Amino acid sequence: MTTDSRPPVTVIGLGAMGKALAEAFLDNGHPTTVWNRTAARSEELAARGATAAATVAEAIAASPLVVICVLDHASVRNVLDAALGGTDVLDTPDAPGSGTGVLAGRTLVNLTNGTPAQARETARWVSGHGAEYLDGGIMAVPPMIGTPGSLVLYSGSQESFRAHERTFEVLGGAMYLGAEPGRAALYDIALLSAMYGMFGGFFQAVALAGSEGVPATEFTPLVVSWLNAMATALPGMAEAIDSGDHSATGSNLRMQAVSFVNLLDTSRDQGVDAGLLEPMGALLDRGVAAGRGAGDVSGVVDLLRTGPAGDARTR
Amino acid sequence: MTTDSRPPVTVIGLGAMGKALAEAFLDNGHPTTVWNRTAARSEELAARGATAAATVAEAIAASPLVVICVLDHASVRNVLDAALGGTDVLDTPDAPGSGTGVLAGRTLVNLTNGTPAQARETARWVSGHGAEYLDGGIMAVPPMIGTPGSLVLYSGSQESFRAHERTFEVLGGAMYLGAEPGRAALYDIALLSAMYGMFGGFFQAVALAGSEGVPATEFTPLVVSWLNAMATALPGMAEAIDSGDHSATGSNLRMQAVSFVNLLDTSRDQGVDAGLLEPMGALLDRGVAAGRGAGDVSGVVDLLRTGPAGDARTR
Ligand SMILES: NC(=O)c1ccc[n+]([C@@H]2O[C@H](COP(=O)([O-])OP(=O)(O)OC[C@H]3O[C@@H](n4cnc5c(N)ncnc54)[C@H](OP(=O)(O)O)[C@@H]3O)[C@@H](O)[C@H]2O)c1
Ligand SMILES: NC(=O)c1ccc[n+]([C@@H]2O[C@H](COP(=O)([O-])OP(=O)(O)OC[C@H]3O[C@@H](n4cnc5c(N)ncnc54)[C@H](OP(=O)(O)O)[C@@H]3O)[C@@H](O)[C@H]2O)c1
Repeated sequence: MTTDSRPPVTVIGLGAMGKALAEAFLDNGHPTTVWNRTAARSEELAARGATAAATVAEAIAASPLVVICVLDHASVRNVLDAALGGTDVLDTPDAPGSGTGVLAGRTLVNLTNGTPAQARETARWVSGHGAEYLDGGIMAVPPMIGTPGSLVLYSGSQESFRAHERTFEVLGGAMYLGAEPGRAALYDIALLSAMYGMFGGFFQAVALAGSEGVPATEFTPLVVSWLNAMATALPGMAEAIDSGDHSATGSNLRMQAVSFVNLLDTSRDQGVDAGLLEPMGALLDRGVAAGRGAGDVSGVVDLLRTGPAGDARTR
Repeated sequence: MTTDSRPPVTVIGLGAMGKALAEAFLDNGHPTTVWNRTAARSEELAARGATAAATVAEAIAASPLVVICVLDHASVRNVLDAALGGTDVLDTPDAPGSGTGVLAGRTLVNLTNGTPAQARETARWVSGHGAEYLDGGIMAVPPMIGTPGSLVLYSGSQESFRAHERTFEVLGGAMYLGAEPGRAALYDIALLSAMYGMFGGFFQAVALAGSEGVPATEFTPLVVSWLNAMATALPGMAEAIDSGDHSATGSNLRMQAVSFVNLLDTSRDQGVDAGLLEPMGALLDRGVAAGRGAGDVSGVVDLLRTGPAGDARTR
């Protein structure tokens, strides 16, 4: 494959994830320009064939497609402020002159983890600078990037997504979720919430096993096969949640709320912090108190709704 | 298969789970005697070929192997007190005369969910009545009983486990965890802790998706494949936990603690209770504060240890 057959890409941010992204582009023959706050990381990538830009502005100027993946939203602001000049430009999308500059005509793809509200804010600002915007959520860890197991979610400019889809596919699966720029972040955050739930449960499990000297490596295969078995219950719960009919169950909520007390007591007895478990115990109890004890545990989900979305959208 | 080739079994408690256990024994040709507090449930089983005992004592007398699966430890006490007579016999294993009676010479298998401490208490009491004891944890929902996906954990009398192993296998996989009667409960509770972590994460995920009108049935396939992908990280974390070396990571804890704020903010923005997430956020922050920010998230697990096991064992 000749390098000039692949469009150029710029990657801003070379932490563990940005480095994996840049390496995937390089490995697939994309002329790749990189920039990182700490320059040593750019030099590493330069040794693998990337062009190390001296400034963010230079990095943006190098490619029509600019991917940014830094720590957080504040870092995105810092980096873009440095490139575009001025202070707090994210807050003043319509400031005189802000519609011009190095970003104009380019596509910015922000793969930094953030909230839907942050995605919408950045989208406004990027539009104000005459550029197209895609917000994204990387559903993978760095070693997965470029493998079939990797998935990146995108939302925002559909035209840009279609124009660069082949380039995005270098990173793994590319799923477009629509023009609403916050949608990819919503999915990302929801999936991460699921993951941290599973991780928290795993931590509790191995801490309990460890309290009796059972090594985590011995206990984990049992945890993994049990979680796989119980994950098969999720689609049925989803149907109950959508239909509101939680009646079909072989495992009633009241029984589960009663057994859950044993989970709390066992952690305390074994000298393991029960804090990760407590909110679930309280939620099951709320479900029973709300008269849902005879139905499935999925009946507690709508108790998580605290009210209408509190995020005043200003798109 | 002739019924008399299979040893008789008694099942006490015919809730969703006890019913599934009794049906599996019946389906496999075991002469099965049943008892349930609410007699209507025994009659249902009698229509399928079970013998409905009029009293608990009669049910216990009917078979050398007695399985009990009721709501909780207090229900076990109630049921056994009724059979053995006297009040609070669980507290007085050495009371005069308590070593005799209908239980003597039998094996009691308690598949009721409970804590390790409760298992040890019941084990003492059962021994005091001249019987063998196995405590168990059912790692399955009722429809799985009798299928290869079902697993029941046992601990306590090894001799009894070996003697009845073929009968137990009628329920699914049978795993013996040693003579310490509380061990099966510990494993059970640890695995349930993992499951409720995953369920809690799932609930948060579908509540977030639902806050933007995305149906749970639409979002769940993405959750399931994401959880499957992330479950592959658990064995690596287990190795880090056992070795204490949390240095190998493409996803450093500090970055994760920063991103976790986005999970909390998004739930709040979307009108979804963030309570299920909060303890994990606090734990990640504690990990960073403890100087583990550069390593893997698995470095937080030992922060869950609050001290030596607080369960004063009195075996
Ligand atoms: N790693 C994963 O498993 C994973 C998975 C999915 C999504 N993500 C997301 O990807 C993003 C990057 O994660 P990572 O794993 O690469 O993190 P990381 O290894 O900790 O790297 C952080 C990056 O952000 C830069 N940065 C931090 N503060 C900055 C600032 N104020 N101005 C400019 N640059 C700044 C760092 O530059 P220096 O080198 O100068 O410090 C570095 O390039 C995060 O939003 C994360 O949530 C990560
Ligand atoms: N279902 C599951 O998915 C599952 C999975 C693994 C383990 N388990 C465990 O299995 C056990 C039974 O669960 P289940 O699903 O069968 O619950 P269930 O359907 O709610 O049935 C509860 C059973 O306990 C009996 N019971 C309740 N209080 C009693 C008392 N004070 N004295 C005597 N009997 C009493 C009930 O008798 P009545 O009919 O008279 O009310 C009924 O037979 C629980 O410990 C549970 O944690 C269940």
